[in-house]
Amino acid sequence: MDQDTRIAVIGGGSWATANIKMLSDNREHKEIFWWMRNTDSIEHLRRYRHNPNYLSSVEIKVPAQHISSDLNAVLAEANMVLLNVPAAFLKEVLAGVSAESFKGKKIISAIKGFVPEDNMIIGEFMHKMYNIPLSDIVVLSGPCHAEEVALEKLSYLTIASADPQLAARFAGLINTRYIKTNVSDDIYGTEYAAVLKNIYAVASGICNGVGYGDNFQSVLISNAIREILRFVDAVHPIDRDIKESAYLGDLLVTAYSQFSRNRMFGNMIGKGYTVKSAQLEMNMIAEGYYASNSLHQINKTYKVNMPICRAVYAILYEKHSPQIEMKLLADQLS
Amino acid sequence: MDQDTRIAVIGGGSWATANIKMLSDNREHKEIFWWMRNTDSIEHLRRYRHNPNYLSSVEIKVPAQHISSDLNAVLAEANMVLLNVPAAFLKEVLAGVSAESFKGKKIISAIKGFVPEDNMIIGEFMHKMYNIPLSDIVVLSGPCHAEEVALEKLSYLTIASADPQLAARFAGLINTRYIKTNVSDDIYGTEYAAVLKNIYAVASGICNGVGYGDNFQSVLISNAIREILRFVDAVHPIDRDIKESAYLGDLLVTAYSQFSRNRMFGNMIGKGYTVKSAQLEMNMIAEGYYASNSLHQINKTYKVNMPICRAVYAILYEKHSPQIEMKLLADQLS
Repeated sequence: MDQDTRIAVIGGGSWATANIKMLSDNREHKEIFWWMRNTDSIEHLRRYRHNPNYLSSVEIKVPAQHISSDLNAVLAEANMVLLNVPAAFLKEVLAGVSAESFKGKKIISAIKGFVPEDNMIIGEFMHKMYNIPLSDIVVLSGPCHAEEVALEKLSYLTIASADPQLAARFAGLINTRYIKTNVSDDIYGTEYAAVLKNIYAVASGICNGVGYGDNFQSVLISNAIREILRFVDAVHPIDRDIKESAYLGDLLVTAYSQFSRNRMFGNMIGKGYTVKSAQLEMNMIAEGYYASNSLHQINKTYKVNMPICRAVYAILYEKHSPQIEMKLLADQLS
Repeated sequence: MDQDTRIAVIGGGSWATANIKMLSDNREHKEIFWWMRNTDSIEHLRRYRHNPNYLSSVEIKVPAQHISSDLNAVLAEANMVLLNVPAAFLKEVLAGVSAESFKGKKIISAIKGFVPEDNMIIGEFMHKMYNIPLSDIVVLSGPCHAEEVALEKLSYLTIASADPQLAARFAGLINTRYIKTNVSDDIYGTEYAAVLKNIYAVASGICNGVGYGDNFQSVLISNAIREILRFVDAVHPIDRDIKESAYLGDLLVTAYSQFSRNRMFGNMIGKGYTVKSAQLEMNMIAEGYYASNSLHQINKTYKVNMPICRAVYAILYEKHSPQIEMKLLADQLS
């Protein structure tokens, strides 16, 4: 990485916008490119320097000509690619991109989700489908709500890579006055934990919707972190402290959040909305909904005891009653 | 314990009132006695069967003649004594009681605090000052807000004792449709964790008052549980899983609570109130305030690295600026 930093951010949502802000506020020299699909948003961004739909208070400093809806053109400019589209759309977004286009580039995943059907975390998917060496992959994780980045509230990011130098290099590109970074070599654990937390946020919402209170919520979450530990230990058994911010902190900020779409979605399910009506009502994707299904498929291999994820799956995909499932779940918690 | 259960609850606050409700709703045969200092409350309770000041929606089923402000008379009736007064007042409450009065009785502590000056947890204090054998002591812990007990929201209690049979016996006296119990042999860890959590709730409040957001809060709490683990491992090194509800759950329910007095107190400190004016304003005791000082004294022996507790102490007792202390603290978290 002696060459200059030319980083492309792929995605136009709130977390991508927050990443753009951090990268811009960071003082290391770099060129930033930004891809998003929505051409109206691009027009607005070029003209007014604000994303019209997400974190619209944030002033965008990316040069107008660096914002584009031509993915291959954006990728061609970059030697680092930060992926930040919803996991459910990643394959569609990358449909016209060849493995060649990623060659020699570092890939940073800020996506928290499984690729549907393939049921893979993003790092794994990019490694397998685009031949990206694992040592060229970085996972960018929280605990971090995009909304608080917009407000410049002090936040901590976790930067995981099999290559510690790459992790440190990327940390140096994104830290700011309001962003501290931890580096880690646990790419699998960091990414799985970041995805699983959304399922537990849905579970928290369901419990709340059904009528359980804060006492139960705290038991649910202390069981959830044990469930995450069992799972990541089964998938990638290394020595890790699950109480670190990347795992426990990320779970807490999501499961206790007022901003969380996943929690809101769960809440509606708990109150009796169908999945379809909750999705229509919210007009956005609750990632935990998709993650629940993928995790269920993945866990057919690992067979880890995950009663909370099991209950969420039964409610969302097998149409079980939230009341009954939560009552059955409560008997399995401690 | 072949004899009948005759249990005295000592204290008239909301957690004591919640304990009375659980014990009454539990179906095991028992006689319940209730001591409180406030004779107006006793009069009200005898006449209207509701505690006028705490959880006043709860119907009290303790017989009128079993409620008294005569502590020695109440103790004389009981073979189990559940202590539930603020830690700061325990010595004063027990001033007229001899060790003889406790002889042969099981002592259950539901107090979350250190005895000031002596800087001891309650079990230790009762053991040393009243010669109660450790195997006759039970620690009753959460995660459990009294307010949710009043609403019969499903909650989990932890019952810790060096004597597993005694723990199981007491669990059998207090579980109900809405109260599940976990038993534990970790009396020291359970009690210390229950006290320390109040300091972290104060810390959470301070951070919020100073202006930190949810992202920082999640990092604070995932550091807090590691700090708790370091401390209890130093004080009483046994094999325990700090992610269990008694430890992590109890921390979460307090630090993320809207009900927590400790959090509210911290919030006012963070916003610039002095300790005295925050206490006057709140008109109640934030246990974390006292716990902070006792922990500071106790940790002179153990010398555990506890940057969060250190910062809270510096703010509350050394009049350091909350802004500066939290900024210094942030550099020590990960």
